[in-house]
Amino acid sequence: MSQPYVHGYDALESVRLQDQAATLVALLHADTAYPDGSTVLEAGCGVGAQTVTLARNSPGARITAIDVSAASLAQARGAVAAAGIGNVAFRQADLLDLPPDLDAFDHVFVCFVLEHLPRPLDALAALTRRLKPGGTMTVIEGDHGSAYFHPASEAASRAIAAQVELQRRGGGNALIGREVYPLMRAAGLRDVHVSPRMVYVDGSRPGLVDGFTRRTFTAMIEGVREPALAAGLLSRDEFDDGIRALHRTTEPDGTLCYTFFKGVARKA
Amino acid sequence: MSQPYVHGYDALESVRLQDQAATLVALLHADTAYPDGSTVLEAGCGVGAQTVTLARNSPGARITAIDVSAASLAQARGAVAAAGIGNVAFRQADLLDLPPDLDAFDHVFVCFVLEHLPRPLDALAALTRRLKPGGTMTVIEGDHGSAYFHPASEAASRAIAAQVELQRRGGGNALIGREVYPLMRAAGLRDVHVSPRMVYVDGSRPGLVDGFTRRTFTAMIEGVREPALAAGLLSRDEFDDGIRALHRTTEPDGTLCYTFFKGVARKA
Repeated sequence: MSQPYVHGYDALESVRLQDQAATLVALLHADTAYPDGSTVLEAGCGVGAQTVTLARNSPGARITAIDVSAASLAQARGAVAAAGIGNVAFRQADLLDLPPDLDAFDHVFVCFVLEHLPRPLDALAALTRRLKPGGTMTVIEGDHGSAYFHPASEAASRAIAAQVELQRRGGGNALIGREVYPLMRAAGLRDVHVSPRMVYVDGSRPGLVDGFTRRTFTAMIEGVREPALAAGLLSRDEFDDGIRALHRTTEPDGTLCYTFFKGVARKA
Repeated sequence: MSQPYVHGYDALESVRLQDQAATLVALLHADTAYPDGSTVLEAGCGVGAQTVTLARNSPGARITAIDVSAASLAQARGAVAAAGIGNVAFRQADLLDLPPDLDAFDHVFVCFVLEHLPRPLDALAALTRRLKPGGTMTVIEGDHGSAYFHPASEAASRAIAAQVELQRRGGGNALIGREVYPLMRAAGLRDVHVSPRMVYVDGSRPGLVDGFTRRTFTAMIEGVREPALAAGLLSRDEFDDGIRALHRTTEPDGTLCYTFFKGVARKA
């Protein structure tokens, strides 16, 4: 969504599209704001895509953002510096083998991370141990099984299923959103409250057509083209038909739905 | 959901469950209230399941509820009378062949009707013609393709797909929710705004576990057992495994999602 928009709209339209892209950020993050002085662990910050929003929404909190990848951390540092944010410290660390001093946080925040882990419950339980009693855990995950669209397309469904299968073979779970509630319960957390955050896109929402259907969801599925074909999960023609069908949903009579799940809970 | 609840909860719990069942009604209907004196056509009222709510939310509107079935109308009349509602007139009429005097309404309301029709666009266009200029059209439909759950189950997905296929063979479309936006646009309506209404059920929402997952969604799928088996869409064992899997989602670690779509638009 950082590319310039080149489809001929004017400046006002461009502002509106940014507003609608911001809607997606608001949908997921607007209700997460930590008190001044509280300590927050962002576990698995990656390249900092969520870190900037997290830090902006909680300017007085002291955020520690960790990731296992030094390369990702370098990008995250850059993103946070570019945004002029000063309340984030970065550390290279493994979720499943946390350094002992990363402990006793008021809050832990985990976004788009558990979906990649072979043992998400172990990770969540380990992070729960690093919370103070009474501290809160926030988990956000998508669920590719929540994607459906008009016109419906078998080829598009097969292309999405190929992405899910590849993620499964990589040890992850692209359908984890629906499991956020049982995972948080099983990790020993209390007062688990999960709320779905549905993205609904139709022709009356051009910012989401472009920012979500085209550049987020379809781009993500398109991104597994080579590994999906290499794995023989479907034929080149099937895959390309599927991508065309997803693009077809961006026409004025098309629709697309996708749901994220956000869970918040408390350590007893 | 009108049966007494007999699973051993106390009176307080019973009130809470009614509240949660009411939540579903609120989710779909709370934002539909027509002004005093306005005329409303409820097209396809069936046995009056929505009519009572519609009339209660708009006590000063003059509602005409039509259905093609005299037997359904008799039940609807009974339901409305039992609720002490006086602002609904019933008429036996066919959506696709409306009597000329059913015309010039301020508002038209269509809920769970288009999914059953072979030509939903023709019906919607015919109803649009019976609106005054500036009048509003409200459409509510479900979408069985929006159903997913944990634990996931191939058998349950096949049982749901059998329901969708049977409805298709009957001339209907159980996946019509995602099409509400293009249908309303194609019917010539303006300012079409569709909002999804997602039902998310997990162990922290016992009223929805019982009222929605068990008694609404699973009961509906279970209801097509005989025709699905007779049509050879799947084996008895597969179907029964599927129903068991849907019941399995009502355990404390289970989840289930389903989405309704509500569209509101204006006649130019």
